Order: sequence, then C-alpha cells, then structure tokens
Amino acid sequence: MATNRQKAVATIQVDNARTRVALWEFARGAETGHHVHGFDYVVVPLGDGELTIVDDNGKETRVPMRAGASYFREAGVSHNVINSGAAPFAFVETEFK
Amino acid sequence: MATNRQKAVATIQVDNARTRVALWEFARGAETGHHVHGFDYVVVPLGDGELTIVDDNGKETRVPMRAGASYFREAGVSHNVINSGAAPFAFVETEFK
Repeated sequence: MATNRQKAVATIQVDNARTRVALWEFARGAETGHHVHGFDYVVVPLGDGELTIVDDNGKETRVPMRAGASYFREAGVSHNVINSGAAPFAFVETEFK
Repeated sequence: MATNRQKAVATIQVDNARTRVALWEFARGAETGHHVHGFDYVVVPLGDGELTIVDDNGKETRVPMRAGASYFREAGVSHNVINSGAAPFAFVETEFK
C-alpha cells in the first residue's frame, strides 16, 4: 500500500562480512516504506520519539522510543515504519549477516 | 594499571544466542577499566563527546565521538576507555556472538 509520505534516509556506516550498520533519519511523518528484514537486527534509538509500525494486515501500533533503549528483532519481520512523533527522529540499525 | 577513576556503568539490554547489547554510561572522567573484547562489536555513540583510548602500552589516543556515527571493531581489541569529554557520555555496544 503505497503512500505519499516522505521517505526516511538511510546512510550505510559499516558493511562487511559480519554486519551492515545504517543510520536511519526520519523527517516528521516520514516512513521507511514496507520492507521485510532479511537479517536479525538491533535498533538503537538516538533520541526520544514515537514510531508507528504498520504490519502486513495494515494494523498500526504506536511505539514510544527512548534514546539508547535498544531492542533486538529476528529476521522475517515485515512492516512499514513511520515517524509519528512530533519531531525528526533517527536510529541506528545493526544487522547480523 | 589501576586508576582511581569512577567506573562507567553498563546496562545489559539484550543478551541472547546472537548478541549482547549494552548501554554504557560514563560520568565525566569515568572509565571502563582495561578490558579485552571477546567478540566483534559495533559502538553507537548517543551524543557528541570525546573518548580517550589507552592501549596496552599506555599510549593515549583522543577520539571525537559524534551522535549516531557508529563504528565496527574486531574481537581482540585490548584497551581502557575514558570519557575525556566535558560532559557525561553514553554509547550502545552491540556484540556479535
């Protein structure tokens, strides 16, 4: 389900045999677009904010983010991620190849 | 070489078969203490600052840190890490088991 939201910007910081590390920067209201995670991954929020996760059934879940409160997810996660907070937001995603 | 510096505080956020993720928080002048990394790892700085890295020969290297500017290092790194910045500092370390 395409939307006309602005896209988040990903900057690859590390890409080697072990991992790919990307800085993801979201303007207010920006989204990643739907994607399926091919690797296990860790997200490190760089600030406080709120993301809305949209699953494959269109279900939306608002998730508060706190600076430095990291979390791990397994490969296979399929969703769109929207910055539903009141300000720009960024996190670093570390993937496990 | 023991010092009487305050110790940095590590909070384990994730610890599973794949990874250990720790939030490291340093008061001004605090240190990790000497340690050898048993795993490859990624560091995600949560703010701007400066760390001083002390290697096994006592050589000190001042390293500027920038929020979200992550880096990867391999297992075997042996050093002490001191917060030589002007304010408290924190980063998240993701280890690859």
